[in-house]
Amino acid sequence: MKLFDELTLIQVSEMITAEFEGLPETKISGLNEIHMVEAGDLTFVDHPKYYDKVLCSKASVIIINKKVTPPDGKALLFSDDPFRDYVFLVKRFRKFESSNSKISNTARIGENCTIQPGVFIGNHVKIGKNCIIHSNVSIYDHCVIGNNVIIHANSVIGADAYYFKRRPDHYDKLESCGRVIIEDNVEIGALSSIDKGVSGDTIVGKGTKFDNHVQVGHDTYIGKNCLIGSQCAIAGVTRIEDDVILWARVAVNKDLTIGKGAIVFATSAVGKSLEGGKEYFGIPAIEAGDKWKEMVALRQLPDLLKKFR
Amino acid sequence: MKLFDELTLIQVSEMITAEFEGLPETKISGLNEIHMVEAGDLTFVDHPKYYDKVLCSKASVIIINKKVTPPDGKALLFSDDPFRDYVFLVKRFRKFESSNSKISNTARIGENCTIQPGVFIGNHVKIGKNCIIHSNVSIYDHCVIGNNVIIHANSVIGADAYYFKRRPDHYDKLESCGRVIIEDNVEIGALSSIDKGVSGDTIVGKGTKFDNHVQVGHDTYIGKNCLIGSQCAIAGVTRIEDDVILWARVAVNKDLTIGKGAIVFATSAVGKSLEGGKEYFGIPAIEAGDKWKEMVALRQLPDLLKKFR
Amino acid sequence: MKLFDELTLIQVSEMITAEFEGLPETKISGLNEIHMVEAGDLTFVDHPKYYDKVLCSKASVIIINKKVTPPDGKALLFSDDPFRDYVFLVKRFRKFESSNSKISNTARIGENCTIQPGVFIGNHVKIGKNCIIHSNVSIYDHCVIGNNVIIHANSVIGADAYYFKRRPDHYDKLESCGRVIIEDNVEIGALSSIDKGVSGDTIVGKGTKFDNHVQVGHDTYIGKNCLIGSQCAIAGVTRIEDDVILWARVAVNKDLTIGKGAIVFATSAVGKSLEGGKEYFGIPAIEAGDKWKEMVALRQLPDLLKKFR
Repeated sequence: MKLFDELTLIQVSEMITAEFEGLPETKISGLNEIHMVEAGDLTFVDHPKYYDKVLCSKASVIIINKKVTPPDGKALLFSDDPFRDYVFLVKRFRKFESSNSKISNTARIGENCTIQPGVFIGNHVKIGKNCIIHSNVSIYDHCVIGNNVIIHANSVIGADAYYFKRRPDHYDKLESCGRVIIEDNVEIGALSSIDKGVSGDTIVGKGTKFDNHVQVGHDTYIGKNCLIGSQCAIAGVTRIEDDVILWARVAVNKDLTIGKGAIVFATSAVGKSLEGGKEYFGIPAIEAGDKWKEMVALRQLPDLLKKFR
Repeated sequence: MKLFDELTLIQVSEMITAEFEGLPETKISGLNEIHMVEAGDLTFVDHPKYYDKVLCSKASVIIINKKVTPPDGKALLFSDDPFRDYVFLVKRFRKFESSNSKISNTARIGENCTIQPGVFIGNHVKIGKNCIIHSNVSIYDHCVIGNNVIIHANSVIGADAYYFKRRPDHYDKLESCGRVIIEDNVEIGALSSIDKGVSGDTIVGKGTKFDNHVQVGHDTYIGKNCLIGSQCAIAGVTRIEDDVILWARVAVNKDLTIGKGAIVFATSAVGKSLEGGKEYFGIPAIEAGDKWKEMVALRQLPDLLKKFR
Repeated sequence: MKLFDELTLIQVSEMITAEFEGLPETKISGLNEIHMVEAGDLTFVDHPKYYDKVLCSKASVIIINKKVTPPDGKALLFSDDPFRDYVFLVKRFRKFESSNSKISNTARIGENCTIQPGVFIGNHVKIGKNCIIHSNVSIYDHCVIGNNVIIHANSVIGADAYYFKRRPDHYDKLESCGRVIIEDNVEIGALSSIDKGVSGDTIVGKGTKFDNHVQVGHDTYIGKNCLIGSQCAIAGVTRIEDDVILWARVAVNKDLTIGKGAIVFATSAVGKSLEGGKEYFGIPAIEAGDKWKEMVALRQLPDLLKKFR
């Protein structure tokens, strides 16, 4: 997320009571977790496994739980619990605001939209022209919806990322401050959910069509003109390129890419990145031709085993 | 769908600016896509693969993109884009009407029904006697619900069919004009969706019981006294006969039949028609006894392979 | 369920017009089906397979369709249809009450809660402090929600158990009179459903976090600090101990236990009880290491079969 007003390193060090190394006047223009970080951002790291990645990232300011020397042009804030301090800042600058009305008066809705009864539209939501939002849809704060979009009944746009940190006796929640962006001409089926980004955006590209009961995790990118079948579940921080077809009930793991024009057959589970332009099937999904061979072979296996008894 | 007022061939030819062959006064009493077509209907065909099927169907009038001679008793409308012209007619005669009230004043609701808060009931919906519609359910226009029906919270009855036509750089939507019909004594779990027919009806037969999170596609027929477990996904244009049991999370492909009294075990995927009276399991579902044998054999396969190394 | 006012054996015998054996003044303090029965409860049994179990249970009064001698300290009510008579009593003492307002005036909501627009809160619901209930959530009568609980949009808490009795030509519903209890610090994702107990409680333990589209059946117990991934489906009367992790789309069968700290990988189906502290995968789920071996072996099977042709 971008901040409405820039902060400085020294201001933030006072907010979270942390020592720092770097220029006190270093500008902070956004808060972002590591997957989405840009120049000007503040981010955090609390695990040795990720120190290098974060220190070499585009972040300008890093909350860290180890005394190291800041890389050139970066500043560090030292904390015994960077997660806690990052969440504190998120909650301060993207405070959850409750709503008294079904359609927030800070929402902007374009001309010629149909908003059916029971729809909830949160604060600062933007909706383009010629959209149909069917009954009992819920749209959380800050989501952005393009033109000619149809969202079917009881779908949920912009719920919180599923992202928790294990503590000795409980989980702490990483508060989400990202958005969902739905581009023009998208259709979302009934009872589907698209979670907001943790700090960045979850995006559904122009012309993509969802069937019912689809799940999309935080910070995932879905390209243009994709077909996403009923009950598909796409985890967070994953990239689905243009013209991909996922038939019904395909599961897609996080942190991977499905290449342009790939087709994944129904009930498959995609566990690693897939090249574009090919067909896939299975749990885990492999090239469909190979999977058919396995299935035919498995059919013959009981007879084969009899021979060896 | 049936038209409120019959049209004639010459009237439709003028609406879509198409030449025709056949009697100008040929009556058109309905609009239907090919799966549901009846005498008196207008339908369309735009792919050589389906010319014969549509020309030999019960349709009285066909929009077609090839100059052929009409079969006996039929009339043809010639179009460079039959899909576009058919959708134009659907939108003209089954126009989507937005609602200003949670319960449309054209809906008819029988005696002794409980309609909980937050329920949306669209235009021209009919609900029988002694029904309980739980909170935040959405029922789209034209759906028909029998007597003693229970629909649990946040379910969606009658959302649009998932049916798109690929164009060079986008998808076009086939506008749905069908209905959902839910017969007497049906119970629908929470968060379930039953899509309307493209032009015909999606039907749930008398006494059938759904668990939560069930998906039913357009134009599917589910018989009487079936049990449909949680998270089952039944695709469009499929036929499930009476007394079928689908345990939890069974996926059923489109255009097939599951015979009377068949039982499909949890998490199976039905890829082709299944005979009634038997038990099935697996992805894809085969007779359960055969699947158990495969599973037992697979368990022994790693040891077998060691022998051959 | 516990009754507001105790009944006596003779009173109930008159309500259901049944002969009895036992002390007429035997107290009845609750109605419970067999899985949840306690001392003081009335329960029922109508199948020879379960006579022994029910007669030896903690129930004080049993409706039974066989003339037997009551065990010491118990009383029997004789009925040609114990299911019918039990349901009659449930409907009499836990009558479904329709609601005229979105938030029942018998609901008790703690301080500092945010209830977003479109939320339905049924009769006698209790909600603790500092909760956020997002838009269009539905909470059925009698549910109990702790402190610091977050429920995301359009989820359904407390829908009826999926529990029917087959009759010659239809199914009869076992009316549910149980509750859902959600303990402190739980987060429930969007579009999730947790069914009420048939007569007891469905429980989600302190600090447990659900992703979206999760299904939990009646009378299931989920422990503390569990993670339940998107689209998981957990059947009824099952026990998930503390610190269990179910990744996305895990199915869990009824009447089993998953031990403390077990991890089940995505898309697995748990068909029998699993020991705690281990990792599992597959349909059905077995120890993950064994499943990887099967998968590697299956990959080699087509080549192996070629050798034997």
